[in-house]
Amino acid sequence: IDASPPTFPVLSVSLGFALVAFAATVALIPGLAPAFARAGLKGRDLLKPDSTLEIPESIGLISASVYILLLIVFIPFLFADALRPSKIAEEKTPLTEVASRPFPHQQLSAYLSALLSLYTATLLGFLDDVFDIRWRHKLPIPIVASVPMLIVYFADGGITSVVVPTPLRPYLGQIVDLGALYYVYMAMVSTFCTNSINILAGINGLEVSQALIIALSIAANDLLYLPWRFTGAEWSAGMAYGSVALVERHLLSLYFMLPLIGVCAGLLYHNRHPASVFPGDTLCYFTGMAFAVVGILGHFSKTLLLFFIPQAFNFILSAPQLFGLVPCPRHRVPRVDRKTLLLSPSVAQFERPPSTLATLVLRIFAALRLTRLTTHPHTGVIMEATNLTVLNMLLLWTGPIREATLVWACVALQFAGSVVAFTVRYGLAGLVYDGDRR
Amino acid sequence: IDASPPTFPVLSVSLGFALVAFAATVALIPGLAPAFARAGLKGRDLLKPDSTLEIPESIGLISASVYILLLIVFIPFLFADALRPSKIAEEKTPLTEVASRPFPHQQLSAYLSALLSLYTATLLGFLDDVFDIRWRHKLPIPIVASVPMLIVYFADGGITSVVVPTPLRPYLGQIVDLGALYYVYMAMVSTFCTNSINILAGINGLEVSQALIIALSIAANDLLYLPWRFTGAEWSAGMAYGSVALVERHLLSLYFMLPLIGVCAGLLYHNRHPASVFPGDTLCYFTGMAFAVVGILGHFSKTLLLFFIPQAFNFILSAPQLFGLVPCPRHRVPRVDRKTLLLSPSVAQFERPPSTLATLVLRIFAALRLTRLTTHPHTGVIMEATNLTVLNMLLLWTGPIREATLVWACVALQFAGSVVAFTVRYGLAGLVYDGDRR
Ligand SMILES: [Mg+2]
Ligand SMILES: [Mg+2]
Repeated sequence: IDASPPTFPVLSVSLGFALVAFAATVALIPGLAPAFARAGLKGRDLLKPDSTLEIPESIGLISASVYILLLIVFIPFLFADALRPSKIAEEKTPLTEVASRPFPHQQLSAYLSALLSLYTATLLGFLDDVFDIRWRHKLPIPIVASVPMLIVYFADGGITSVVVPTPLRPYLGQIVDLGALYYVYMAMVSTFCTNSINILAGINGLEVSQALIIALSIAANDLLYLPWRFTGAEWSAGMAYGSVALVERHLLSLYFMLPLIGVCAGLLYHNRHPASVFPGDTLCYFTGMAFAVVGILGHFSKTLLLFFIPQAFNFILSAPQLFGLVPCPRHRVPRVDRKTLLLSPSVAQFERPPSTLATLVLRIFAALRLTRLTTHPHTGVIMEATNLTVLNMLLLWTGPIREATLVWACVALQFAGSVVAFTVRYGLAGLVYDGDRR
Repeated sequence: IDASPPTFPVLSVSLGFALVAFAATVALIPGLAPAFARAGLKGRDLLKPDSTLEIPESIGLISASVYILLLIVFIPFLFADALRPSKIAEEKTPLTEVASRPFPHQQLSAYLSALLSLYTATLLGFLDDVFDIRWRHKLPIPIVASVPMLIVYFADGGITSVVVPTPLRPYLGQIVDLGALYYVYMAMVSTFCTNSINILAGINGLEVSQALIIALSIAANDLLYLPWRFTGAEWSAGMAYGSVALVERHLLSLYFMLPLIGVCAGLLYHNRHPASVFPGDTLCYFTGMAFAVVGILGHFSKTLLLFFIPQAFNFILSAPQLFGLVPCPRHRVPRVDRKTLLLSPSVAQFERPPSTLATLVLRIFAALRLTRLTTHPHTGVIMEATNLTVLNMLLLWTGPIREATLVWACVALQFAGSVVAFTVRYGLAGLVYDGDRR
């Protein structure tokens, strides 16, 4: 327990980098976007009066490039603390103190491996935009992207044990070593973070807004673990309970999240309704991987997943279409009335009557007002269902609204999800976990 | 000095990876290349009978992806030696020995930073292929790509001092610390390695052949430093003179070069005359960066540069055109007679009479048979010059030959360059350097 007042010089630098990230993204996009369109990376905005107009796509690549470049330039600041002992040594400080603070090479290699995973995700995301990979083929891409981080985690002899929830401790003990299963779990976290954002898409600014709110939520959670002065004792303030390791982990998470907030906000400036650029799959890949990286390296993957409640809900809702139980058209975005510009749910049509299982699922969803069915007037067989996405579901609830209103509804949903997440994490987790956090 | 017979288990793994790299590249290219063409990444082969036929371009991306993926998967093998002590500890070996062998985190972070630089080079090379960046703009790209490696070199407190050649020691001392200049030098090495290969291009298989011969030369040089048994004493064998650090550096270099040889040979299989795919700028970027990486991390950048004699010569020869002294047409590749398929030098035409300096340079080049001038019959003013590249120069010497013959001439030239390099390095370097190598 350290009694000296804590300072956060590196965090201030990171905050400065976030501002640079925002400014650079806002400034670079208008200049570089036309080159994307010229190279064939462009798409139509289907929900606008003139749906033939094509706007530059895959602009998430600019955000990703600025982000990775800034994270690389950040390295000397991050490890400035580690370089300082040699300076102190010159000023004739006791050598015992210097020797007790080794250069944090392990942190450096973890940080570099995270950058490699972000790079892989960015490159694969951009390849997806260029080559337009089918979604069944791209589902495992985040697993490939997480390989660098997992391999370095392995080479570094990373922890693969987890704390067991109190009700299960009589059977499993306090801590259980998952071994190889832990790597499978980490790869699944990457896959989920990446694809779940990608699936909840289709209206202006939606992907970027999700990423932005999740990043802000993670950053807010990180702030809880810093040794603020709001109670008397320094280190016991916040949720770190005197653990230097916990403070360090959440600082590292902030160093990844602050510039991410910057590049996402910068992209949103140009992608918000009415959009002048599209983010492309690149955005979902690198932001999803950034979330996975901090959750895994920061050892708070369960908390992380709580911030994905709307995405998880959308995934469960979409599952019957994604896995072929219900027909899935190429586009599931809401349809637009070109005169009024009001959106209404798009539908999937059944060429053959649905199976018994599909009928059962759809009837349950319809009873919960998650979809609306059109049935044959005589036989009662399902002929049509609104597509199973959160967007169409919201439109069922609100009636016809404009695109900009729907975006705000989604933002509100994501924000509400984060409120629930914090409540669960700090209100209810005490029921199944004691103070033993790692 | 270790007397036990040396074994190279990790080197054997690396050799296996090289074979996988070759097989994977050969197998993947035919399947993936059509997707490149569909995405608009295709180009015409101007020296073939039917010059309207377009073949897939930027296929170096497949080589680069296989290469980086293999280097990532190689990490556990590379650091297996470091992980072993904990196993030995379980088998009740004296703990003193375990403690004396710390985990080589510094090597791990250097290796990861090299991967980041390779990634940056690959991504920027692919962006060059997609967006077709003008050469003046792309000249500094390798500097950006070398940033990750240089930053980690800096954060690790890397050596910035160099051994002074013996004739200069009375003035500078035995070792001089270049400080920040050393980073500038390293960035220049990256820029040179990348761009010099890119400039010597235009006929089937040429870029890949250059990269392959340079990689083979570096690997051959590395082998000289391994503790072979060809003399009695183990560690004094080879050029390492008992230095474990030198052996380790050249082993690391081999781990980067062997898979590179694999992916280059695999690409050459499809890119050799008559080419069915083009490598694109991506190849030059990632291979150039791989060479820079081993030269810098292995501390043998001067030896490395010796393997670029043909490229350096081509650069000097091209300089008057690259820097605007002599007009530079968009393409400087030799021209082809479509009936005989024989190549002859292409020419640059002067719209205005050349400046006095340009005339002087061109007259000297012409006297050395590096170019051929067409002058005005009455005034003697230069009207035309063959383009200033090694390809056109070779054609001046040989007369009209076929493309495949010209490729072999270039391969012979590159091979001769490496012979000269080894002669200079091990025959003549003793005149300006003593045994103090670092
Ligand atoms: Mg796509
Ligand atoms: Mg290009």
